[in-house]
Amino acid sequence: MIERQTVERMKTRIGILGYGNLGRGVECAIRQNSDMELAVVFTRRDPGSVKILTETAVVRSVSEAVEWKDKLDVLILCGGSATDLPEQTPEYAEHFNVVDSFDTHARIPEHFEKVDAAAKKGGKTAIISVGWDPGMFSLNRLYADAILPEGKDYTFWGKGVSQGHSDAVRRIKGVKDAKQYTIPVDGALDSVRAGENPKLSIRQKHTRECFVVSEEGADRARIEKEIKTMPNYFADYDTTVHFITEEELKRDHSGIPHGGFVLRSGVTGQEKENRHLIEYSLKLDSNPEFTASVIVAYARAAFRLSKEGNSGCKTVFDIAPAYLSAKSARELRASML
Amino acid sequence: MIERQTVERMKTRIGILGYGNLGRGVECAIRQNSDMELAVVFTRRDPGSVKILTETAVVRSVSEAVEWKDKLDVLILCGGSATDLPEQTPEYAEHFNVVDSFDTHARIPEHFEKVDAAAKKGGKTAIISVGWDPGMFSLNRLYADAILPEGKDYTFWGKGVSQGHSDAVRRIKGVKDAKQYTIPVDGALDSVRAGENPKLSIRQKHTRECFVVSEEGADRARIEKEIKTMPNYFADYDTTVHFITEEELKRDHSGIPHGGFVLRSGVTGQEKENRHLIEYSLKLDSNPEFTASVIVAYARAAFRLSKEGNSGCKTVFDIAPAYLSAKSARELRASML
Repeated sequence: MIERQTVERMKTRIGILGYGNLGRGVECAIRQNSDMELAVVFTRRDPGSVKILTETAVVRSVSEAVEWKDKLDVLILCGGSATDLPEQTPEYAEHFNVVDSFDTHARIPEHFEKVDAAAKKGGKTAIISVGWDPGMFSLNRLYADAILPEGKDYTFWGKGVSQGHSDAVRRIKGVKDAKQYTIPVDGALDSVRAGENPKLSIRQKHTRECFVVSEEGADRARIEKEIKTMPNYFADYDTTVHFITEEELKRDHSGIPHGGFVLRSGVTGQEKENRHLIEYSLKLDSNPEFTASVIVAYARAAFRLSKEGNSGCKTVFDIAPAYLSAKSARELRASML
Repeated sequence: MIERQTVERMKTRIGILGYGNLGRGVECAIRQNSDMELAVVFTRRDPGSVKILTETAVVRSVSEAVEWKDKLDVLILCGGSATDLPEQTPEYAEHFNVVDSFDTHARIPEHFEKVDAAAKKGGKTAIISVGWDPGMFSLNRLYADAILPEGKDYTFWGKGVSQGHSDAVRRIKGVKDAKQYTIPVDGALDSVRAGENPKLSIRQKHTRECFVVSEEGADRARIEKEIKTMPNYFADYDTTVHFITEEELKRDHSGIPHGGFVLRSGVTGQEKENRHLIEYSLKLDSNPEFTASVIVAYARAAFRLSKEGNSGCKTVFDIAPAYLSAKSARELRASML
């Protein structure tokens, strides 16, 4: 019995703040990692109204979170990048080792500075912008750029659901519900793979496809025109609009798939005569669950780094790959190198 | 003038030991990285007989190498894994920061221990088994395994030239010259990509194709049979043999292309209902030049780690990605994350 308790105590104790798609994905991912356990979910809703999957974990109000500072090894922040994380990550990084998935690329440097100051103040380790883009795609851009300094890189997204674009369509008058897919253009991908180093416009890289449920009697021609001419979101793309029924939307478009490609084409040799192509791609049935799986691996890293005495903010660029794995360094060398 | 000297002195000074295909590839790669400079090539041949590309570097006998211990930041060991590196890397790791491309997977743990002891004794940083497999493929196996703990991974090699298999064919009586290509089976790759998690035999994963120049009057039927039945090398594969002329071999098969695929297919979700595919692939015109490009990026890391006071042996698993890049951490966060 003592032995069993010792083993269980060695598990990394995780807290989740925010129980939407990402939070639920983190909970599922923890269940797939036997060295981790979910201890608590913090919510802004009434804790009594939130049902979670993990019987051994509890649900608490976010207002009580800081009281758990000595009972958790890592707090995973599952809020949104627009308004939640810019506040939450600096706030909690002082009290907990934290991981977030802050994905507003342009604001990462600013977010980093704030989180770094808070984490250093509290002597904690924070890892920001974890997921697949930013995250695994960023890593692949960095590795490929370092290996082939003379080259050109390309990132394509999709085929997958863009939440932001789906929301934009839903805001149009007469639209009851909608789902938008971002789709990479095959010809553009092929040209990159052929080493042609194409210069690609926005329109040449991706197309957009919308599945729209219109309200009864709505003017579909107007809706379609409003979508296709919407600045930033659709005007620069070739966009297709399909009107479907609510049942069809539910039946055929309820998933949250995504994915994409990072490619780098570069040259080496005395006369730059040899060409090389590095390609990384993801094909994901569930965007939030995959993001959550990356986050949980980095939660393992955050706790290890903290135990080694590190503090401050880090990104995926700063973390040696071995920290992500439950396997020992010796085991990794013997089995994966 | 002083300013210029200061800038130049800040370059990482590299030595190359062994000037074959890999050593020449390292020399070319250094020319593509403006923060590095080649200082010296050590050779077992008569130094006067070795012509290099870099006018500012010198050629010296390998017997003088240790005398350069305070004049180099990193020594890159470009010998073979069979007999050179098991001796050389432990020998030189005591005196220099070193990088090697030791690729006998089964003997990596043993090599690691020896190099680790030597590097710690000398207070130096050694990075072993750098390249693409072991190397970039290993990294991708580790990342994918850590992210998707419930899944299955697959490595395919090719299409590319296997030096070992080409040599094996050349040793057959009546063979004047030969080149062997390893080719992944498209159907097997498709099955993995479709998430079918196939159990694949050796024969189902790769085919082998040989281009053979036979000596005049040689018995081609016997040669073909000897190839196809050769244990370990060919007997377990579907092998095709083409007899061609010496001119054709030279014209069509003088390159050293290679590449391959690392895939992991895994599941997430409450009921493991969501499937994900991670795929990394390389398509390389020149196997040694790409390997050299990876090595040079890790040479940058070795020197940085050494300056930070690290010592001992490391692998690609132990090195944070940012160490490979010439860009600063701030620049990387702003441009690549």
